[in-house]
Amino acid sequence: MSVALPLPPGSAIGILGGGQLGRMLALAAARLGFDVVVLEREADSPAGRVAVKLIVGDYTDEAALAELAAATSLVTYEFENVPSAAVDWLVTHGIEVAPGARALAVAQDRFEEKTFLNAHGVPTVAFAAANTPDEAVAAVTALGAPALMKTRREGYDGKGQRWIEHAPDAAAAFAELGGVPVIVEAAADFVRELSIIAARGRDGATAVYPLAENHHERGILRRSIAPAQVSQATADQAERIAARVLAGLDYVGVIGIELFEMADGRLLVNEFAPRVHNTGHWTQDGCEVDQFEQHIRAVAGWPLGPTKAIAQVEMLNLLGEEADAWAKYAAEPETRLHLYGKRGARPGRKMGHLNRVKPL
Amino acid sequence: MSVALPLPPGSAIGILGGGQLGRMLALAAARLGFDVVVLEREADSPAGRVAVKLIVGDYTDEAALAELAAATSLVTYEFENVPSAAVDWLVTHGIEVAPGARALAVAQDRFEEKTFLNAHGVPTVAFAAANTPDEAVAAVTALGAPALMKTRREGYDGKGQRWIEHAPDAAAAFAELGGVPVIVEAAADFVRELSIIAARGRDGATAVYPLAENHHERGILRRSIAPAQVSQATADQAERIAARVLAGLDYVGVIGIELFEMADGRLLVNEFAPRVHNTGHWTQDGCEVDQFEQHIRAVAGWPLGPTKAIAQVEMLNLLGEEADAWAKYAAEPETRLHLYGKRGARPGRKMGHLNRVKPL
Repeated sequence: MSVALPLPPGSAIGILGGGQLGRMLALAAARLGFDVVVLEREADSPAGRVAVKLIVGDYTDEAALAELAAATSLVTYEFENVPSAAVDWLVTHGIEVAPGARALAVAQDRFEEKTFLNAHGVPTVAFAAANTPDEAVAAVTALGAPALMKTRREGYDGKGQRWIEHAPDAAAAFAELGGVPVIVEAAADFVRELSIIAARGRDGATAVYPLAENHHERGILRRSIAPAQVSQATADQAERIAARVLAGLDYVGVIGIELFEMADGRLLVNEFAPRVHNTGHWTQDGCEVDQFEQHIRAVAGWPLGPTKAIAQVEMLNLLGEEADAWAKYAAEPETRLHLYGKRGARPGRKMGHLNRVKPL
Repeated sequence: MSVALPLPPGSAIGILGGGQLGRMLALAAARLGFDVVVLEREADSPAGRVAVKLIVGDYTDEAALAELAAATSLVTYEFENVPSAAVDWLVTHGIEVAPGARALAVAQDRFEEKTFLNAHGVPTVAFAAANTPDEAVAAVTALGAPALMKTRREGYDGKGQRWIEHAPDAAAAFAELGGVPVIVEAAADFVRELSIIAARGRDGATAVYPLAENHHERGILRRSIAPAQVSQATADQAERIAARVLAGLDYVGVIGIELFEMADGRLLVNEFAPRVHNTGHWTQDGCEVDQFEQHIRAVAGWPLGPTKAIAQVEMLNLLGEEADAWAKYAAEPETRLHLYGKRGARPGRKMGHLNRVKPL
């Protein structure tokens, strides 16, 4: 039994993961008349609290998956580390999962990801895989120090990676990262970090939002400025990259692609996330159809919406206790607040974000 | 025990009523980090499906009210016919209810409403109360036919009212309306129907949105154009009316005030609704802070947000089977769809609305 597309309003959409991205996807889906069913490990989660139904369980728990499959025939996700076993189970049981298994498989392994990108004519930094301490040292030697060592799988917001200043240090770093397969990346001497949020519908139509300029602190996104000030050539280059990635993955949904802008104007892809993306939060107040509605439209087989900017936005993440200043931000006329309803403001935890809006 | 204001994100807000207005209030509250608890008679409702908790029960069921009071200390509502017994019970048990009992009491009785308006210097059509067939005939005779007879309480979207073409017919019409107390209103020879959405915070600060021009069909709102083309004098007049109504009710929250624009430029108030209002749906895509977030801000004791228009909007209600054309509307780049997830498209039932947006 397969899902009838386009999915009519009143239908239920399943979301794997109950964090803030799931919450904002759920709110966008509700606006279009959909019900949302969330599968999440925690009983109390940002997305679970706005869903018609919350299934608490592990993503590979077959009873939980069966409960999800009974409630909906279309499932998406809010994080890229969805176990492939979960997707396989759902697909085997006739559930449509978007973006699909291929996008997840490629995105879950940093070596596969960069290999895929290069194979589709999308430039990245030079890189090499390493499965042993000796291979790690050899990789850094070949690429030149300093180089960045990352676990091939898992890790986010700067976790699971080490800078290697001297090739012989690579052996110890390999051990520190758990002795698991790693990728070693040449240092990118970039001048700016940019990103592009793009979408592809079930009919193959694509849409891209204007670029965002991103600033990280300690590996965590701090702020985005969008639309970024870029040349037309840079915008065209980013759009070509997005088109290649989307087509190469036969993608359905919204994708976030992080870019390094080099001094010579070239764009290299740092990584992509097969989901809505923190650097796309500006679209909530800067575009008529934001990345969350766009993702729901795409996976539901609806036509994509417009992506042009209608305002200039500075997006600021509220980390940990920063969100306690909500009353100050609420009083700023130019500031739109988006809070996730998370319990417990651990340092560095993303508690909300704000979009400071001004006319273009 | 009273609620601490301003209400911090992460707190729960209670909503009486589970319809589309409750749903859109719930989505706005969620965006600001609040949880929403809905009390509603139906087990399956638009707002209930996006709430963290749905309490199914009658509004005067004390067990249901006690469950609501256990979950939240701040309650608002999405319809003006909330039984006063429900509000009294909640207030007695230390729950803050906004907008308050006075606004509800005045709004629930069309005679009290117009009496209140005139007493606060706000003009209306001439009117009279009638409790018997004879009084009804006398009222029409005094006001002049044709006149409009309405039940003093209940009734919406044109239900519970009759046009009286000849004074003697008033006796039969009185009986047709159930023999209950009525108000008889002189015909308003208006050139346009306008409305103003206004808000008042707990600190007494007020904010008004630009006027909307409204078109009804068979007593049901069909479309609104906003900002309406009006003179500065008309806008000022509407703003003064809103200020008087808000202050006179010591109001907290968003209010919708329906206006008749007369040939001589005077504005008469037709009625007001102590809640978010269908003629304010354009603000979702025409303003930075829409009427739903504004209402949540006001009742939660937050500062009010900006109300200026950032786009020109035509709002169209989707009634009954009209919502079946969602795929057509979804493909229009200028159209933002808002669907309520209602089961069953009875003729005339509000299933959703769309905002057609263009630059100012």
